[in-house]
Order: sequence, then structure tokens, then C-alpha cells
Amino acid sequence: MAQRLTISLDAMGGDHGPDVVVPAALHAAGQHPDLHQILVGDEGVLREALERNGAGTGPSLSIRHASQTVGMDEPPSKALRNKKDSSMRVAIDLVKEGSADACVSAGNTGALMATARFVLKTIGGIDRPAISSAIPSIYGHTYMLDLGANTECTPEQLFQFAAMGSVLVTAVNSIDAPRVGLLNIGEEEIKGIEAVRRAAQLLSQSSLNYVGFVEGDDIYTGEVDVVVCDGFVGNVALKTSEGLAKLVGHYVREEFSSSVYSRLAALVAWPVLRRLRSRMDPRRYNGASLLGLQGIVIKSHGGADTYAFANAISMAMLEVKKSVPKRIGHLVASAMADVSERET
Amino acid sequence: MAQRLTISLDAMGGDHGPDVVVPAALHAAGQHPDLHQILVGDEGVLREALERNGAGTGPSLSIRHASQTVGMDEPPSKALRNKKDSSMRVAIDLVKEGSADACVSAGNTGALMATARFVLKTIGGIDRPAISSAIPSIYGHTYMLDLGANTECTPEQLFQFAAMGSVLVTAVNSIDAPRVGLLNIGEEEIKGIEAVRRAAQLLSQSSLNYVGFVEGDDIYTGEVDVVVCDGFVGNVALKTSEGLAKLVGHYVREEFSSSVYSRLAALVAWPVLRRLRSRMDPRRYNGASLLGLQGIVIKSHGGADTYAFANAISMAMLEVKKSVPKRIGHLVASAMADVSERET
Repeated sequence: MAQRLTISLDAMGGDHGPDVVVPAALHAAGQHPDLHQILVGDEGVLREALERNGAGTGPSLSIRHASQTVGMDEPPSKALRNKKDSSMRVAIDLVKEGSADACVSAGNTGALMATARFVLKTIGGIDRPAISSAIPSIYGHTYMLDLGANTECTPEQLFQFAAMGSVLVTAVNSIDAPRVGLLNIGEEEIKGIEAVRRAAQLLSQSSLNYVGFVEGDDIYTGEVDVVVCDGFVGNVALKTSEGLAKLVGHYVREEFSSSVYSRLAALVAWPVLRRLRSRMDPRRYNGASLLGLQGIVIKSHGGADTYAFANAISMAMLEVKKSVPKRIGHLVASAMADVSERET
Repeated sequence: MAQRLTISLDAMGGDHGPDVVVPAALHAAGQHPDLHQILVGDEGVLREALERNGAGTGPSLSIRHASQTVGMDEPPSKALRNKKDSSMRVAIDLVKEGSADACVSAGNTGALMATARFVLKTIGGIDRPAISSAIPSIYGHTYMLDLGANTECTPEQLFQFAAMGSVLVTAVNSIDAPRVGLLNIGEEEIKGIEAVRRAAQLLSQSSLNYVGFVEGDDIYTGEVDVVVCDGFVGNVALKTSEGLAKLVGHYVREEFSSSVYSRLAALVAWPVLRRLRSRMDPRRYNGASLLGLQGIVIKSHGGADTYAFANAISMAMLEVKKSVPKRIGHLVASAMADVSERET
């Protein structure tokens, strides 16, 4: 029999709260008989949401009442101070106390990161957690981090991100020595910012499979498995990609509806266009990992729908099965040992 | 009669040198009877290239011999020190001495920026030049800067970029008070890096039409006319977009050739797909401006073809006609005066 997993869900978080989280949980429950989910939030609201979906609590689904909700625009410090009984906080507390193996939230990223860090603490050797997500590439996926948790980073932090990203790729994609690239603006050694140049030195001395500097376009070419950058740059790259994807979608809709012939062509090409849309569907990649914590926390996109949120739940399950936090602790310790050895 | 313009072309620069620059110049000559172009480079090579294209020198096209060439990977400091008779340097010298109104080069960006800055000097009130280019958006174009000349920027530099970008948009797109956004990773005041937050304060006090923070996706939505960021972030955003565009192209080719039906659909949809490709063609946007110099320098993409390089020549002509450097000097002086006034 498979190991039984427990995932706590911040059922009030995100743009849609229980309207998305509850059906997503029911979907996941149907797919994974070994899964126990704890819906965290207002008990009355959650019971109603379950009823609306023709379901109730049971051995695979329970409710844990939480009286507060963190607003999507609430400053992290305020959420941390004033919302000790929020659905987000309680979902993370359940991981801390061992009642859940991981938690998933579509809530406010800043508050989630601050709360997770405060409650779970970072793994030894990790200064700050980072956010990582899979990004489609020509040959598979690239994992990029940090995507916005840390605006400015030291070389040591970038190094830790590289180690954490390597662990994630090994765990999730079963790749033994993931290729790590440092995001920079030129491939020559002379270019780039100081922290990135120094991180490159640390990485070259470590046991990680560091392949060198990469540029923005390499995120999508699949030349590396892990792209490391600070959270400001990572977030801009991610959002820029979202913007360009929207522009392309806009162009496609405009051109395929610009004339009677275009609309006919759209009909004929519909099966192909639908496959294209599905391949580029960001919902498939929903579920960013908050790496570096003593516990597993998955951030769903705030606007996620049921399908997308269910993918975030799957990501949480995968990280539990692969013991990602424990592996990060081991790898960071050994990778840093290599660096210190060569330095002495 | 229209004003006669002279543009010097670094005919040896870029991946293709005279093979692209010479036909592009001939194309531009055919389109603009008021244009005089000076091809700068090895005279023998250039005469041959002209002959191959069935043309020669004349009142609208001359050759200026330069004995050296700057390599695409040559460090800027070396190019500046050792290549005083390079096609790049001489093309810029011609602008300095008033023999040309602007120059265009597809050469090494770092060397071009260093040489242009050394020879032409910056405009009063501008600390460092910046690279700006038009980027297609849902409602038209966004001009983004800096795209890679300055890896780390002070708040004052970001402010100057905003002023330079505003001038460029006003000159090129005839928009009176271009909307300026500062690239950041969250719309709340609390997020982001220190330099960006302080630049926001300067901009709010100035006479520029500053609309606030924007995120990466806003580059493509057209919410603002100018997006301001440091060169590291700008370059990553630009390259990331190039990478995603390649990925989309790859998906489209794969899906439209995956079966007999898909290939038939591609045939039917071909006129629409061709229009789409043309709308997304980066060659249309070739010709980045090196802003902030006492002279007009346009950087063409290194891999530009004839069509793309000819667009860079058109951009140079437009900036000459609109006296972009002079306007930048005026606007920066007046915008900074507003800030100082409010501060006293």
C-alpha cells in the first residue's frame, strides 16, 4: 500500500477561495486514494462549499476551522502579526506540528513567504527561502529561482538557490546532475553584476553541475535545467513572459478573426490551435515551490482555477514523496563543504 | 526641398558586415532621395560589395576607408584603446566632427557604447547613456530602457532614463506627454529595490507624466509608453522575450506538422500564419537608440539582415529629423529643475 499523505489547503486564499479550492480538493481526492486533505478556513463556508459540490468530509477530507483570512493585498508584516488564526497561518501550522506533510495556498505571496518562514524556519545552511517554478522549454522544463521572494541577493544566497533548484529537479524529474546556469546579461566573464560574478566563482568550485552564465533566452531553450537569479530579475522575467504570451494570444485572436477567410481558416486549424493553447497553458505549470524551508509549502497562482489548483496539490504530493526539504539540507551541506575545502 | 541628411554606417560591423550593410544602404538610398550615406570600412571590400550589388559610389553614397574592424566579442576597453581606425570608431568620429548627422552600427554593443560615449560625450545632466528600443504592445509600442548599457543604476540615472525615453516617444510617435512606468515586482509601494523606490519619488515630483510602478507583463499590455529599468533587468526581460518567442515558434511548427491533417490546416491557415509571423517579426523593431549622447547612434542587432538593417537606418533618420539629443538636453534640464524646486 502506498504511503498515506496529508496535505493542508489554505481554502480561503487566492482570488476565488473555496470556490476553487474545494472542487480542486475533491478532484485530487478522486485521483489519489492515498491522499488525505485538510481544508483550512471558515467551517460553515467550507461545509456549504462541500455540499454545493455534492460532497462532505470523510476519511480523505477533513475541515480545520480558521477564523481569519489574509487579504491578497495585505502587507506581509501585518498578516504575520494580526492574523494568527488565518486559513494561511493554520495551514502552515499543521505542517509545523506534523499534522500535514505539506500545504498549498493561493494566497498573497509575500504573506505566505513571511508566515512560512516564521513558522517553519529555514533549513540549516539556507539564509533565505526562494520561490521556484517549472517553465516550459524546447526540450522539457527549466526550473527558475528565485521568482520574487528576495529582491537583492548575496553570492552565497544565489549559490544556495542553485543547490535547492538542483535538488528540486533531481527529485521531480529524476535527473541526476541537473545543469545549473546563472542568469546574466552576457556570456563573457566581464559582464554582469558583482553578486552574480562571485556566485559564479562559488558554483565553479562546488560539486553542483554548474555550466556557466546563461541569458534570458536560455530559460526557454532548455540548455540548462536550473536558472538561478535574484527575485527581482526572476519576477520580471516571469511577468514579462506572461505579458508576451498575452500579446501573442491577442495577435492570434485578431488575425484569425480579421476576415471571413481567416475565420474559416481558424475552424479548419481549430484542432491544432487547441493543442497549441493547451501546450502553452500556464495552468499546467501551476504550483511554485517555496524552497529552503523545514517543510513543504506550495504557492498556487492567485487566479488559479480548479484544474490549476489541483496541479499545485500534485506538486505538493510529489515533493512529499521525494522528501525535498531533507534532500536540500544534505546537498547544501555537501556542496558548501566542497567550496570550503577548495578555499582552504 | 527636404533637409539633406547624412548617416555614417559601420559597414564592417555585425555578423554579416558589408553583405548586409551595403544592400541595406542601397535599399535606403532608393527610398530616401534626401539621404546621403557614408559606408565606413575597408575601401576595397566595400567597392567590391557595391559592385556585386550592381552599384557604385555617387552623390548619395560615399565610402570612407577605415583599416580596422572591432570583433563581436572584443572587450570594449580593448576596442577603445587599440582600434582607433576601426569602421565603428570612424563612423562615430564622423558624427563628432559634423560630417554625419547620425551613425548606425551592428557591431559589438559594449564597444559601440564605450566608443560612442568616449567620442561624443554625454549630454549635460545625463550621467550615463542608455539603450532603448521599441517593443510591440497590444495598443502600439512601448519604449524600454535601459536594455543593457548599465548593469546597476542610481535613482538619478533611472530618472534620466525616464526623461530620455519620454523625449524619444514624443519625437518618434508624436505623443505629447508619454506615460512613464518604473519596472518593479509589485504594485505596492513597499516592494522592490531601494534605487527603484527612490527613483519613484524623483519621478512623482517631476514634470514627467509618471504613472507609477509597472510589472513585467505591462511591457506588452501598452499601459505605458515608456518602461524604465536598469540595464541588467531590461536586458533579461528582452532576451527572455526572445526566448519565449522562439519557443512559441517551435510549438507552432511542431503542432502544424504533427499529422497530415495538421499540415493541411497549415496550408489553409498559411495567409493568417504569415501575417502573424510578420506582426511578430523582430526585424521590424530593429534599431535601438543609444540615448543621452551628444550625437545620434543607432545599434542594429548583430544578426540583422538587409530588411532589419534598413529599419535601423530609418530610425537614425527619424531621430535626426526630430533632433532627439537636443530635446533630451532641454527636457532633462527642465524636469530636474522641477524636482530641485520642490525639494527646496
